[in-house]
Amino acid sequence: MAETLGDTGIPGATVARLPAYLRALRDLEGRGVETTSSTELAELAGVGSAQLRKDLSFLGSYGTRGVGYVVDSLATYITSALGVEDEHRIAIVGIGSLGHALANYSGYGTRGFEVAALLDASPGVVGTEAAGLVIEHIDALEEVFARENVTIVVLATPAHVAQEVAERVVAAGVREILNFAPRALQLPEDVIVRSVDVGSELQILAFHAQARALAESGSTPSDAVEATEEPAAQP
Amino acid sequence: MAETLGDTGIPGATVARLPAYLRALRDLEGRGVETTSSTELAELAGVGSAQLRKDLSFLGSYGTRGVGYVVDSLATYITSALGVEDEHRIAIVGIGSLGHALANYSGYGTRGFEVAALLDASPGVVGTEAAGLVIEHIDALEEVFARENVTIVVLATPAHVAQEVAERVVAAGVREILNFAPRALQLPEDVIVRSVDVGSELQILAFHAQARALAESGSTPSDAVEATEEPAAQP
Repeated sequence: MAETLGDTGIPGATVARLPAYLRALRDLEGRGVETTSSTELAELAGVGSAQLRKDLSFLGSYGTRGVGYVVDSLATYITSALGVEDEHRIAIVGIGSLGHALANYSGYGTRGFEVAALLDASPGVVGTEAAGLVIEHIDALEEVFARENVTIVVLATPAHVAQEVAERVVAAGVREILNFAPRALQLPEDVIVRSVDVGSELQILAFHAQARALAESGSTPSDAVEATEEPAAQP
Repeated sequence: MAETLGDTGIPGATVARLPAYLRALRDLEGRGVETTSSTELAELAGVGSAQLRKDLSFLGSYGTRGVGYVVDSLATYITSALGVEDEHRIAIVGIGSLGHALANYSGYGTRGFEVAALLDASPGVVGTEAAGLVIEHIDALEEVFARENVTIVVLATPAHVAQEVAERVVAAGVREILNFAPRALQLPEDVIVRSVDVGSELQILAFHAQARALAESGSTPSDAVEATEEPAAQP
């Protein structure tokens, strides 16, 4: 199956939607539902059903006319496509209040991830415990990553050190980074960075709030506001 | 300017990239840089320069051949387009460890936002303080939103109550929601939801890590992995 994946070259935008499908399938499983339609699954995942069918066609067609999709088979198939059958080992770098919250996030284990290491540069933080792990010094980053087989790094440092720390993470051999620091990272092209910036998300919402207020006051046509229903995290 | 905005109907995808341009311009301002090129600004924002020029053309052309963009004018213009000149008042609903981290996020004030209210349902949490505010009971949601003129809600509840709480938020008149709960929300079409799901972001990175490992082991062509350099938060 892995080879099929490699051969078909699933588009990045499809990959970005697969977790939402998997989450919807897990919801259905939890409610004892055994089969689902593309319409139902699409609605639960917050996408259009044509989009869903197209995305799933990249994985091979798994729907049967009149029956739809078998929930547990499709979930297993997407899990395998995403590469989350094997456990991925994560390091969180930057254990401020956001880093703490991320360390204590409860969804890792059920989704194929284990937080293997926490790192920080602050003397008051290094040596303390969070989420059952002792926070280690960032100076030992290379050793810690090698010891723990870290493959994914969550970056939650202050913005002004994010670039420097990211370069060090990449030099240590990690190529997948989830960046919570509010700045764009300049890294080699083969590094995959996913960025979450709370301030940017709020600014996008503020734009829509303003456009709505203007439309309601009658000063602009309401259809000038193009809706973005798509989840932020899934370009 | 607001009317021009309404008339031109800026695409949602362009809106989603404006915060990154603004952030890059603020960085340049902070370093005392007065003019910039589309190439420089695009690189700082992590997008292609053709994309940047196209996006800015929706706001009206502000680049001058041979000079580029005047940093502070363009920043002011984007700020106005985003509607973050006026302060937006935010309520955070769900004050677990992530809600706490979001309440203590330091970037609100500088970006046009004020956290006006914190709400939770848990008796042990209601009445305690976070980020200088007393956490109020979710049963008082409607009163609190009206009292504080809340226009944007950050949802950080557990997944299983997110839909119910979101419906209540919408019923109270708020139409802009930033959702951190790991489930898709079914809400009226005029509600704008931006979603951040840490687990989904990690699954996307895991896919790329697996594809890379397979490519390196020689079992798939490395070009089968389509890069997603685009920030997750900017579809």
